[in-house]
Amino acid sequence: MRFQGIFPALTTPFAPDGSVALDKLRENIARYNRVPLSGYIVNGSTGESVLLSFAEIDRVWNAARESAAPGKLLIAGAGVDSTAETVARARRAAELGYDAVLVKTPHYFKALLTPEALERHYLAVADASPVPVLLYSIPQYTGISVTADWVARLAAHPNIVGIKDSSGNVQLVSEIIRQCPPEFSALVGSASTLFASLILGAAGGILALACYLPEAAFELYEAVRAGDMDRAGRLQFMLLGASRRIAGELGPAGVKYAMDCVGYYGGAPRPPLLPLSEAQKKAVESALAESLARQKRDHLGVAG
Amino acid sequence: MRFQGIFPALTTPFAPDGSVALDKLRENIARYNRVPLSGYIVNGSTGESVLLSFAEIDRVWNAARESAAPGKLLIAGAGVDSTAETVARARRAAELGYDAVLVKTPHYFKALLTPEALERHYLAVADASPVPVLLYSIPQYTGISVTADWVARLAAHPNIVGIKDSSGNVQLVSEIIRQCPPEFSALVGSASTLFASLILGAAGGILALACYLPEAAFELYEAVRAGDMDRAGRLQFMLLGASRRIAGELGPAGVKYAMDCVGYYGGAPRPPLLPLSEAQKKAVESALAESLARQKRDHLGVAG
Amino acid sequence: MRFQGIFPALTTPFAPDGSVALDKLRENIARYNRVPLSGYIVNGSTGESVLLSFAEIDRVWNAARESAAPGKLLIAGAGVDSTAETVARARRAAELGYDAVLVKTPHYFKALLTPEALERHYLAVADASPVPVLLYSIPQYTGISVTADWVARLAAHPNIVGIKDSSGNVQLVSEIIRQCPPEFSALVGSASTLFASLILGAAGGILALACYLPEAAFELYEAVRAGDMDRAGRLQFMLLGASRRIAGELGPAGVKYAMDCVGYYGGAPRPPLLPLSEAQKKAVESALAESLARQKRDHLGVAG
Amino acid sequence: MRFQGIFPALTTPFAPDGSVALDKLRENIARYNRVPLSGYIVNGSTGESVLLSFAEIDRVWNAARESAAPGKLLIAGAGVDSTAETVARARRAAELGYDAVLVKTPHYFKALLTPEALERHYLAVADASPVPVLLYSIPQYTGISVTADWVARLAAHPNIVGIKDSSGNVQLVSEIIRQCPPEFSALVGSASTLFASLILGAAGGILALACYLPEAAFELYEAVRAGDMDRAGRLQFMLLGASRRIAGELGPAGVKYAMDCVGYYGGAPRPPLLPLSEAQKKAVESALAESLARQKRDHLGVAG
Repeated sequence: MRFQGIFPALTTPFAPDGSVALDKLRENIARYNRVPLSGYIVNGSTGESVLLSFAEIDRVWNAARESAAPGKLLIAGAGVDSTAETVARARRAAELGYDAVLVKTPHYFKALLTPEALERHYLAVADASPVPVLLYSIPQYTGISVTADWVARLAAHPNIVGIKDSSGNVQLVSEIIRQCPPEFSALVGSASTLFASLILGAAGGILALACYLPEAAFELYEAVRAGDMDRAGRLQFMLLGASRRIAGELGPAGVKYAMDCVGYYGGAPRPPLLPLSEAQKKAVESALAESLARQKRDHLGVAG
Repeated sequence: MRFQGIFPALTTPFAPDGSVALDKLRENIARYNRVPLSGYIVNGSTGESVLLSFAEIDRVWNAARESAAPGKLLIAGAGVDSTAETVARARRAAELGYDAVLVKTPHYFKALLTPEALERHYLAVADASPVPVLLYSIPQYTGISVTADWVARLAAHPNIVGIKDSSGNVQLVSEIIRQCPPEFSALVGSASTLFASLILGAAGGILALACYLPEAAFELYEAVRAGDMDRAGRLQFMLLGASRRIAGELGPAGVKYAMDCVGYYGGAPRPPLLPLSEAQKKAVESALAESLARQKRDHLGVAG
Repeated sequence: MRFQGIFPALTTPFAPDGSVALDKLRENIARYNRVPLSGYIVNGSTGESVLLSFAEIDRVWNAARESAAPGKLLIAGAGVDSTAETVARARRAAELGYDAVLVKTPHYFKALLTPEALERHYLAVADASPVPVLLYSIPQYTGISVTADWVARLAAHPNIVGIKDSSGNVQLVSEIIRQCPPEFSALVGSASTLFASLILGAAGGILALACYLPEAAFELYEAVRAGDMDRAGRLQFMLLGASRRIAGELGPAGVKYAMDCVGYYGGAPRPPLLPLSEAQKKAVESALAESLARQKRDHLGVAG
Repeated sequence: MRFQGIFPALTTPFAPDGSVALDKLRENIARYNRVPLSGYIVNGSTGESVLLSFAEIDRVWNAARESAAPGKLLIAGAGVDSTAETVARARRAAELGYDAVLVKTPHYFKALLTPEALERHYLAVADASPVPVLLYSIPQYTGISVTADWVARLAAHPNIVGIKDSSGNVQLVSEIIRQCPPEFSALVGSASTLFASLILGAAGGILALACYLPEAAFELYEAVRAGDMDRAGRLQFMLLGASRRIAGELGPAGVKYAMDCVGYYGGAPRPPLLPLSEAQKKAVESALAESLARQKRDHLGVAG
């Protein structure tokens, strides 16, 4: 498996006037480069991709490519509702030197997007994309669910190399792993189920949590690889609250505020996403503090 | 109420090579001009707006404006996930001479799009839009529902003049009408509940069905206005199957095929939407035939 | 149609010690007898049937039968998850002189209860029941939805004479009416959609609201029968809040408190249903007051 | 933790005439006694409890108690919608010598069953029950979900000793374990997530799958206890299909047919549950065969 390990789903920093702050993005990536993360997702859901114009996305992709340390895998969030536009974005990402594209399920037309329609979409994108394609399922935002049988059919395409599954459904991840070839990468999109998924054979995680707790996420991954289940379990419990209460419940605004708390540049999200209320900020702070307290209590010795 | 009566939610015709076929759009509108419809929605859900680039939308808006007969109200589908981009689209529509913009609820970030976030979005758009704003709720595609209380709060803004509600929930429409000022236009998005909604005070309908059965939709509207409840009821029953089985179950592809059947240019939808299967085509034909049979049996004398 | 008009879905009064208060039930029915209601539903959802033992239900059925004025139709809530037990209850209701049984969809096993399984259930009950069967769909409690096609198939059975549809879905009610024989009674379970449903051909309503506003519900029914759409519309608007905010949002506890407010015996529900909080009581009072204010303002002259 | 290990959720055998076949129940239990299962759930969802009268349940409880080998823990499914009736059933189970009662969430009144209402229900049951109470959440049948915070509040009651969570949500199970005292038993209701849950600290499983593959379920439990993660993972993959495709998708009828296939008495379910179609029987057979093939291929050496 080429796509494995921990990948932060990068946020898109905005300047106070609302424009994309590429300098802040570069600074964040420079810091992430020091952590043994496998690479970066640029312009995913956490990156507020649906709130950016394509011209902005292009600049973000460029800046991230320039800032990423050598050896980091670069994955571009390229999926939109239109098949043709998704292909166009995948081509542009490849041109810029990206290693793969992450293509979320089209979703606007819900019931019309049958498994067959979705399958044809991905086959068309995979046929046309110069770089490998990762499927991306995030039903809490799209209202579209996939099955293991459907994933296994697509995994037969040579240019479809993995999936980011953000459903949080460990049974589904298990069945995907069981039914797909061993070189197909099942990456999970929620830190809350990372340990359980890794133990069942998941390749890693593409995580919003890795924007604000990248070292801990990496160490959980490493503990499972090293067979240290006890440590892995304690790391998972350490991350549970900081995953659900920040990335899970507060989305990009929460992730960004947590980044501000731990020394990255977070900043505000774009409207219609609201900045955090004072009570929500306190909830982020308390989730981070609780995580830190567990780390100390359980002698987890996480860097960062 | 300025926005009342029947408005077709226009489809976007595509040429065999997938490009927008503006000539076909013009021809369709030329025919619709002969029916006493109140105006046109250009680039709504039925127009596959999420599958068009903004450059394409601009050309579609232009062509529709040029083709619409004088006196027809022109409403531009302008809502996207980003507040700023929605404002930009509303400004462009106004520049092109549109009478109003239809702004669907942002929806990608689901649970993060609280009533407060949605309210701020609409207030920002309404403040900035040079033309009046119609709210647009279509939970079957967006996963976002609204309440009558929420609509009534927004109806207090002088530049928010109505709503297109496609939920199919007659109780909700009733409550919106009861709680909003009399000049606020409640337009329904489903022909299946048109009669019931009109009788409760709805201003009219923005209907995909009006793309293929425009005369019948108009006559149902007229029958209610004229107090002929018996005729209105029979027209509603005539339209039920042709509404649910075509627009409701098959979406843009079904609407387009029904247009082909009755002499407009329909054509294929854009991927990832699939063209109809043979069985689905037969279902459209049979729904249209059943509608025609009822029209004859009930001596409804609908033109067209 | 034999089953038409307005039927209150009777509550089950409890004494302070939690036992069934048959005397209070008799007093309530004695008062309802003076309103031109078509009859009574005894032991439905509003009657908290799932919280009563069958021995208690038997006594309630007996007491209601003795208290109902001659000519009132008596309908027994007889549906439970088990087919055999539903048949046993239908037989007992018939023995006690009930005119029909109301049989809600079995629901515990959700996905296993396919349309075919539900159809076999109803056919078995209808074959065995000595009295006519009314189907009963209430998806907000059961999680089970039905389609018009499914209803139409069952309507072909000579002992299945109607449906109580509590979905609030006016399109569904329209399609049921369109597809079923004219003698099949479509009764709605929500006062919020009564006007729209009656205009489309519904036979009447089985309403929790008719426990606390029986006269107004009846007058809305009469206005539609008399063709006075304007009065019917005003009555519907008068009832909207009192329906949604009391029966809809607060269930049996809300209905009972509203009954207490207007002079019937309501009392507390059985655990696990909670009695109303003070804030909820105020919401009931204000919904009733608003209804009364509209009645006066619109000169509706409702008795009671 | 007292309640740990693997417990089959026993089916209720019926004779061809539909009556409860106690002799078959005894025979099944006699066989289960030879497997190192921790005990039995008698009259749970898989036992079709909602389709049995209380007189029948009493006889089933009696027969199971008489048949269970010494040392096996006996847990009675005692939860119904009514708080008072649940208490009565818990008392009867205690009288018969049961070790605990499993109390599913009341569910009929859905939105009215707020966390507070459910909490009061469980506190009342726990106060009155002579034996310990296990919470039981099965949202796919009840439509009622619980949160870890809510479970943790109830876990403070000295007579509430655990939960059976059938949601399949591993994140929820993790959070319950993290927030509840160490002596609180988190038991999962789905074999598909057994490995992941055990690794996170779950006490065991109450499994329909353990009716037809009891040895394999037990060996997965043992492998995790012994720290043999590799074997545990292979056992989990061996069980995935046999769990989802039989217990998950086909419910009691599927479980019973699988029991027939492997030498227990299964038989037919009660109406309205349908017996399996021929295609469904083949699906069961193929899931069992696939499970056996994996067992051989992976040299898992499971007894039975």
